[in-house]
Amino acid sequence: MSVITVERKILKKNDEIAVENRNVFKKNDIFCLNLLSSPGSGKTSLLEQTLARLKHDLKLAVIEGDVQTDNDARRIAKYSIPVVQIITNGGCHLEAKLIQDALVNFELEKLDILFIENVGNLVCPANYDLGEEKKVVIVSTTEGDDKPSKYPSMFRVSDVMIINKIDLLAHVDFSMQQVRQNALQINPDLVIFETSCRTGEGLDTWINWILSVHNN
Amino acid sequence: MSVITVERKILKKNDEIAVENRNVFKKNDIFCLNLLSSPGSGKTSLLEQTLARLKHDLKLAVIEGDVQTDNDARRIAKYSIPVVQIITNGGCHLEAKLIQDALVNFELEKLDILFIENVGNLVCPANYDLGEEKKVVIVSTTEGDDKPSKYPSMFRVSDVMIINKIDLLAHVDFSMQQVRQNALQINPDLVIFETSCRTGEGLDTWINWILSVHNN
Repeated sequence: MSVITVERKILKKNDEIAVENRNVFKKNDIFCLNLLSSPGSGKTSLLEQTLARLKHDLKLAVIEGDVQTDNDARRIAKYSIPVVQIITNGGCHLEAKLIQDALVNFELEKLDILFIENVGNLVCPANYDLGEEKKVVIVSTTEGDDKPSKYPSMFRVSDVMIINKIDLLAHVDFSMQQVRQNALQINPDLVIFETSCRTGEGLDTWINWILSVHNN
Repeated sequence: MSVITVERKILKKNDEIAVENRNVFKKNDIFCLNLLSSPGSGKTSLLEQTLARLKHDLKLAVIEGDVQTDNDARRIAKYSIPVVQIITNGGCHLEAKLIQDALVNFELEKLDILFIENVGNLVCPANYDLGEEKKVVIVSTTEGDDKPSKYPSMFRVSDVMIINKIDLLAHVDFSMQQVRQNALQINPDLVIFETSCRTGEGLDTWINWILSVHNN
């Protein structure tokens, strides 16, 4: 298919800008996390819980990526944290250039952690390096424990897997052991957390991981 | 972005093949449904429940689209129905050409209904006509009632919206009224069903709709 060559060129260009972004983060000592998942896995809820727990000790900022609407940015803005909404108008992923453009809105030298919430899509965003330090894929218990096997690229490129909505475990057919096995088969280095944004279970462990990695 | 032109060309080519597929379906009196959703909304479960209820009275076939694995085709094969698995190897959507190639595996003149289960992705597959008669988007109660607003293209091109996993309503923050309002605002012609593949609730109404539309 003739598009493949073109996409490679674009990906190459994307990777070059991602390197520039990474240099900006390094220069300003910013820890950048890219949150990825299907629509409705709980990226924004996880982000809200995370911001609430970190905002008093660290300078945070958020870039929200959505196909349409600024709903998520409005949710985040309630935490009094700088947030930029990128609306892709149908685009299925964020690209490094969009992040680069968004960065001018922040006082970078004052930031400690930048969270990027990608477009809800378990396929395409896996191919686009944004310059982040860690990619975090979120999979919820309602989606089924086969998702790492069915969408392997995303789990291969991620550093962390968060298994969210564990409060619903009793009501769904989902094996924690199976999802871990499926994910680790694809990427043995995945750091795995189990969370519920409704009950708060598991969030402390996730927060402690952010703090420990950020301080390194 | 230079890819846009190329994608338009590909889409044009795709639409031409979709017309060919549509003609094949018409000639053979096949009712073709394209099932679309995020990963884990319950496309395959809905398909299983649907096949079990229709297989004794109608000649059915299934095309499964997945980024990786033939898990879904193996689930469907248990119903003794002809099934073709398309593995896209990272591709984020099905295209008309893939469907055209898959059709050679079926005895088309004997078929009544063909179900296509698209790749789990609420963004990209919306742009690709496969030649189907109806597009069916599935949204589950665990994903949040804002999904039609956040991913409007998919709901704009669909004929039917199925709200799945209604057995979990008591455990999630999801308003049935809100999701209907959000979806109908984008597409006032949407036919809407509410289902649970675990309890069977609502499935009869969905099945009756298939039968009534198929018979017209």
